Amino acid sequence: MGTLAEEIFSYKLGRPVTQGETVVVEVDHVMSHDTTSPLAIQAFRKLTENGRVFNAQRAHIVFDHIIPAATVAAATLQRDVRSFAREQQIEVLQEGICHQVMPEKGFVTPGSVIVGADSHTCTYGALGAFATGMGSTDIGVAYATGRTWFRVPSTINIHLTGELPFGVYAKDVTLEMVRRVGVDGANYRAVEYTGDLVRRFSISERFTFCNMAIEMGGKAGLVAPDEKTVEWLRGRTDKEYPMLAPHNPQYERVVEIDASTLSPLIACPPDVNNVVPVQEVEHIKIDQVFLGTCTNGRLDDLAIAASILRGKRIHPDIRMVVIPASREIYLEAMRLGYLETFVQAGASVGTPGCGPCIGRHYGVLGPGERALTTMNRNFTGRMGDPTAEIYLGSPATVAATALTGHITDPREFLAGAVRERNEQE
Amino acid sequence: MGTLAEEIFSYKLGRPVTQGETVVVEVDHVMSHDTTSPLAIQAFRKLTENGRVFNAQRAHIVFDHIIPAATVAAATLQRDVRSFAREQQIEVLQEGICHQVMPEKGFVTPGSVIVGADSHTCTYGALGAFATGMGSTDIGVAYATGRTWFRVPSTINIHLTGELPFGVYAKDVTLEMVRRVGVDGANYRAVEYTGDLVRRFSISERFTFCNMAIEMGGKAGLVAPDEKTVEWLRGRTDKEYPMLAPHNPQYERVVEIDASTLSPLIACPPDVNNVVPVQEVEHIKIDQVFLGTCTNGRLDDLAIAASILRGKRIHPDIRMVVIPASREIYLEAMRLGYLETFVQAGASVGTPGCGPCIGRHYGVLGPGERALTTMNRNFTGRMGDPTAEIYLGSPATVAATALTGHITDPREFLAGAVRERNEQE
Repeated sequence: MGTLAEEIFSYKLGRPVTQGETVVVEVDHVMSHDTTSPLAIQAFRKLTENGRVFNAQRAHIVFDHIIPAATVAAATLQRDVRSFAREQQIEVLQEGICHQVMPEKGFVTPGSVIVGADSHTCTYGALGAFATGMGSTDIGVAYATGRTWFRVPSTINIHLTGELPFGVYAKDVTLEMVRRVGVDGANYRAVEYTGDLVRRFSISERFTFCNMAIEMGGKAGLVAPDEKTVEWLRGRTDKEYPMLAPHNPQYERVVEIDASTLSPLIACPPDVNNVVPVQEVEHIKIDQVFLGTCTNGRLDDLAIAASILRGKRIHPDIRMVVIPASREIYLEAMRLGYLETFVQAGASVGTPGCGPCIGRHYGVLGPGERALTTMNRNFTGRMGDPTAEIYLGSPATVAATALTGHITDPREFLAGAVRERNEQE
Repeated sequence: MGTLAEEIFSYKLGRPVTQGETVVVEVDHVMSHDTTSPLAIQAFRKLTENGRVFNAQRAHIVFDHIIPAATVAAATLQRDVRSFAREQQIEVLQEGICHQVMPEKGFVTPGSVIVGADSHTCTYGALGAFATGMGSTDIGVAYATGRTWFRVPSTINIHLTGELPFGVYAKDVTLEMVRRVGVDGANYRAVEYTGDLVRRFSISERFTFCNMAIEMGGKAGLVAPDEKTVEWLRGRTDKEYPMLAPHNPQYERVVEIDASTLSPLIACPPDVNNVVPVQEVEHIKIDQVFLGTCTNGRLDDLAIAASILRGKRIHPDIRMVVIPASREIYLEAMRLGYLETFVQAGASVGTPGCGPCIGRHYGVLGPGERALTTMNRNFTGRMGDPTAEIYLGSPATVAATALTGHITDPREFLAGAVRERNEQE
């Protein structure tokens, strides 16, 4: 009896738990990446007596933030982390963003508890796991003990209904959530997504909004598993998992969103809840667009952008960076011709990883420059100079903007893309 | 009557000139890139009265060294250079390494004189142009006046004969040249390549050794144009050009190389003439391999490496970076399946440009790390930490090494690649 978060913790502990209770649970998987591993390892070294991680098959290090290394400092830290991984017999995964690679590898299953040294670990809730980001010290503890403590969180329910209007995507719905809940409205809480629109959303789209649960302060974003979850996991894991669902849940708050009322949205700097309809900011000139990240770097995101850019050239005053979220996505996007479309349009296609999202390489912004990106954060200074500005939108809006050089409503270009396809058929 | 260098200057000036003479000539094209343009612009600003470059169609700015920008400093400089280019109506080319893009665009023709703010501008001599790298201030003068002065250089002739043995490539022959002539043996001199092997070498292979004329101190590397030159330029330029050739040339020195005596070679740190047969250094463990650059980032280079890597995975202790030299090459390598081969093997494929060659991003080396690369320079600290080591070899040697984790003679893997292909047919 309870919210999905309560159901997961009850399942893990084999007894009913309720929100507010403090519990210690075994974690199914622990993850850190190239920039958080060094501190996690430092904490781990102080804590362990035998010097071994709790389970090398359930401890994961993903290199994604600054790869290939962009500085001697990054290269040195990576060298040291690789040496730790070799010592612990942990495989270093360097094939995409941790939040895409962890699910692809089958490490994320319904009912599992996963902690990661990255704030967007909440992404995995799209598959019905309770997953949360923690500081490197807490991750060091989890590497050592295989356990961690939680206060079972109360839950905000976001109930999604209605048909998506033409040109409106999961990302736009996500920005509307953050606008409604605010950047700290879900602090310490789980966010549970329900409603017929959630059921209709693909796993990729569920990743998009679970990824941004933390942008409302959420400890976790959660979608109860269904046949789409089972389908997505087929071939990725042999593990058995429970199909948990909320039962008579006591939600702290219910937020109803009827997607049919929405238009394409933009989150303006410097806060993710500073959300306006795209029409209000169409005059804003953009220097760089970036398509990628753990929010919107998946195959469906690339497909939408490619449909808009096919056979066209980006505006001469725009730089465009495209980074598929994982090697699996990169290879599929290459086979489907999306990468060729992007490169012919004039984009720089990067190796799977975080790219310029954290302003450490591959598209850092200079003073006064403006970017429109599919990222999850538009904080001051995140992509480079503190006077640069970051706007957030959907892959379609990013692609349309690449063609015009200013923030652009994607609907006219989508109409064109649909018309061109019909004419060819 | 004279060396190819003398013939070119005589053609340009419309009168016979001889080595040692100081001449002022109109340059056909002037080039600078993202990291040298700022100083060139500074010099230009001081010199010009009307504030305009001599000819916006013959002045070129190529962004290749740190693109997409890896730091706020780079982003700021690039912003300023873009602003200058807009003011001058110069197109900023961001589609590959300047030394590949300039020829592809048809700016390099036999008999032309080209100056660039990059030491490897000598590459263009593969098409029979006299092209040389200059400091940014000299390039600023050329941007302002369209002219520059030269002392017509004396010439070292490298005469190449013999069949290339199995597993030996233009890069190996090039390293042998540097071994023989030394890193300053051609100071102030032109290097003119002749012999039946030069005639058999493709334009791409000629680029490889002309590119490294500067590694012997050469002011220019020169190959007289032939039917391969004409074929390569077809479709790239409508400009008429003279088929200049040396006539009774007075060479300062002739270096004879019989390629049939060579084996795969490695230039060991820290000097390019520190060249040994690959067998002597096969025990050396490598952390990173890099396939690309203006020396060896062309389609034939990628083809050789792909034939070795097809269906295989790189060694788990190796990182592999692959960067096609230009967008044209990138797209063709994608269509031919080479990029898919590299990514499936575990490599990071980057956007066309210089990549980690100058240690500014995309594969910087940490302390004590070792790289084997297809680059032209192995200087201390060039790719990152000063305690890191750079070894130079051919694309085949780099690909073989990616599979084993230590410097590896490519011949056994090439034999395997040939055998597999035969079995499939």
